[in-house]
Amino acid sequence: MEHYLDNSATTKVSEKAARKAYEVMTQNYGNPSSLHLKGILAEHELAAARKTVAKCLGALSEEIFFTSGGTEANNIALFGTVEAKKRRGKKIIISSIEHSSIIEAAKKLEKDGFKITAVPPQSDGMIHPDDILNEVDAETVMVSVMSVNNETGAVMPAGEIFTAVKEKNNSIICHTDAVQAFGKIQVNAKKLAADLISVSAHKVHAPKGCGALFIKKGVRIVPCQYGGEQEMKIRPGTEALPLIAAFGTACGEFDLTADYEKVKSLSDYAKEKLSGIDGVIFNSPANALPYVLNISAGGVRSETMLHFLEELNVFVSSGSACAKGKPSYVLNEMGIKKDRADSALRISFSKHNTKDDIDALCAGIEKGLQMLVHR
Amino acid sequence: MEHYLDNSATTKVSEKAARKAYEVMTQNYGNPSSLHLKGILAEHELAAARKTVAKCLGALSEEIFFTSGGTEANNIALFGTVEAKKRRGKKIIISSIEHSSIIEAAKKLEKDGFKITAVPPQSDGMIHPDDILNEVDAETVMVSVMSVNNETGAVMPAGEIFTAVKEKNNSIICHTDAVQAFGKIQVNAKKLAADLISVSAHKVHAPKGCGALFIKKGVRIVPCQYGGEQEMKIRPGTEALPLIAAFGTACGEFDLTADYEKVKSLSDYAKEKLSGIDGVIFNSPANALPYVLNISAGGVRSETMLHFLEELNVFVSSGSACAKGKPSYVLNEMGIKKDRADSALRISFSKHNTKDDIDALCAGIEKGLQMLVHR
Repeated sequence: MEHYLDNSATTKVSEKAARKAYEVMTQNYGNPSSLHLKGILAEHELAAARKTVAKCLGALSEEIFFTSGGTEANNIALFGTVEAKKRRGKKIIISSIEHSSIIEAAKKLEKDGFKITAVPPQSDGMIHPDDILNEVDAETVMVSVMSVNNETGAVMPAGEIFTAVKEKNNSIICHTDAVQAFGKIQVNAKKLAADLISVSAHKVHAPKGCGALFIKKGVRIVPCQYGGEQEMKIRPGTEALPLIAAFGTACGEFDLTADYEKVKSLSDYAKEKLSGIDGVIFNSPANALPYVLNISAGGVRSETMLHFLEELNVFVSSGSACAKGKPSYVLNEMGIKKDRADSALRISFSKHNTKDDIDALCAGIEKGLQMLVHR
Repeated sequence: MEHYLDNSATTKVSEKAARKAYEVMTQNYGNPSSLHLKGILAEHELAAARKTVAKCLGALSEEIFFTSGGTEANNIALFGTVEAKKRRGKKIIISSIEHSSIIEAAKKLEKDGFKITAVPPQSDGMIHPDDILNEVDAETVMVSVMSVNNETGAVMPAGEIFTAVKEKNNSIICHTDAVQAFGKIQVNAKKLAADLISVSAHKVHAPKGCGALFIKKGVRIVPCQYGGEQEMKIRPGTEALPLIAAFGTACGEFDLTADYEKVKSLSDYAKEKLSGIDGVIFNSPANALPYVLNISAGGVRSETMLHFLEELNVFVSSGSACAKGKPSYVLNEMGIKKDRADSALRISFSKHNTKDDIDALCAGIEKGLQMLVHR
């Protein structure tokens, strides 16, 4: 019996989405750019997926650009915007707890002469609107703030931030990395006042290797990649149709309210049980999405506990999967001390988890603390 | 009964490869960067695919970098090399009949101040080594010549060119877009004397959305995308594991000699039958790969004939799928007159085609010529 509690790292593909990918690979295998019927049928599949993803974001089909994942969507958002706006100004405001695909892209831009301001969260793990607004000046061309933090589940006031930024200067491009929010809470382009939104397929029970960038109609992006006319030249290259179709299928299976309620009750159950274990501290802020629960457990190093739990078929992570076990800059930026951060575990749920998974996790942590703390 | 003769646009995914993708999506769905067992099993899948692709290219595993496809591989090769070499020189030599992902990337580089020399083919459709060598000067940092042209099947002397270029100046980076050669003829990194080789999965019975770039050990490439540490930071972002595993599986099914013989006999059969049809002219050079056969048919516009054939369930293309029906710059560069180029059809085979497909094609073209020419 497998207890997979690392759904913020990646998710199991739904049966329906996986079957769709299989069908596209073996039957509807045409190239969407081909002019004949096989191509047209493939193009229909692409259009259907685009429509579904658009609907989930409250967007138009023509505002959805498929990418190879969240990382590419974030890279196109950042590089594409600053290239388009570089004559206007060189300042970009991000939060200091963005995903590495924003942080590292911003570092590259800094090397290239752009001015990056990375606003830290307050001790509650939240990016506060005023902290962003105070940085907005005449040089600012872009603000990028994630919707939900991938390590703590903190739900950021992206909509509030973007609305206030636009009030100050309507020409500033607002981008949110919604990879951890999409499919979990409403991510609505208009309500967010966002120009650009990044989402990823593999976090929502669709396959790895696919994502999308919402680009508000009228917003100009300079492509990062050149070739054919796919995705309106914003992202050329033959479309990853099996993945895109599966992504559309998975999005069609969203049931935000019911899924949220289910995961919230699981998360509440986990919090209650974990509170009863001596040595467990919660790192996730109070308002965090129930899908993510970041804890520290009795000073046992994250990796040690992670491998102990793995022996019991319980799978959690020590932070972001992309960071491969490096110390968490997110917890550090929140002002959490090194010792506590070094014992952090990220437990992340999906609608497919059960109370059994939580029971196995809690029993494992309890046992782990007994066996590992006094060594 | 479907007669799919557009295998240079894309191929049907093999059953074994599609099943592998399905298995990865629904069972081995971990994130290869996760530290726990689910992650490690996924990482094994990734490593196995990398090893197979490496073997097919006569390369080391560590020289293979998975991408989202041939277009991205070509873009990384070009942009990544010039960025790494820009202090050394600014001249890049390509052929004028490269795939759009090289041509368009080169145009972007030209805008950015690089000097692009696009060497045309001679009237035989071939890029001749001397025509490239004559362009190599002290400013030259890179030469990019495709292995097989995607519209005509012309097999370019890439190995001969690269060997001669390296003799002239060993520090020049040699890249070949081997998308249409890989899986059809031997593409061996050493024999080609190549520093960089681009390949694509969906041309070899693996899914769309995946490719790889061979980067010779020691050759420096500046990434085009930033984020996590996947693919040695050359191409960050969670790996498209279902596709990559399927790509590895499809590569494991290569049987170059047997497949080539089979396709050659089909192609010979097609050439013989087509020669007997009044008005059919061959555009592919004599040395072309049997997998691709470019013809012009009696002055009937490509699209008209393509749609006529489609009604008979025969699927061919009017040129590159990526060009979406635009006039062929490849045939134009070969000096083929507009009228003839405007009636070009690309017939492209796979090992799964049969004589029935050819019979249907030839009957269709014959009928088409009767019905369409005299309108």
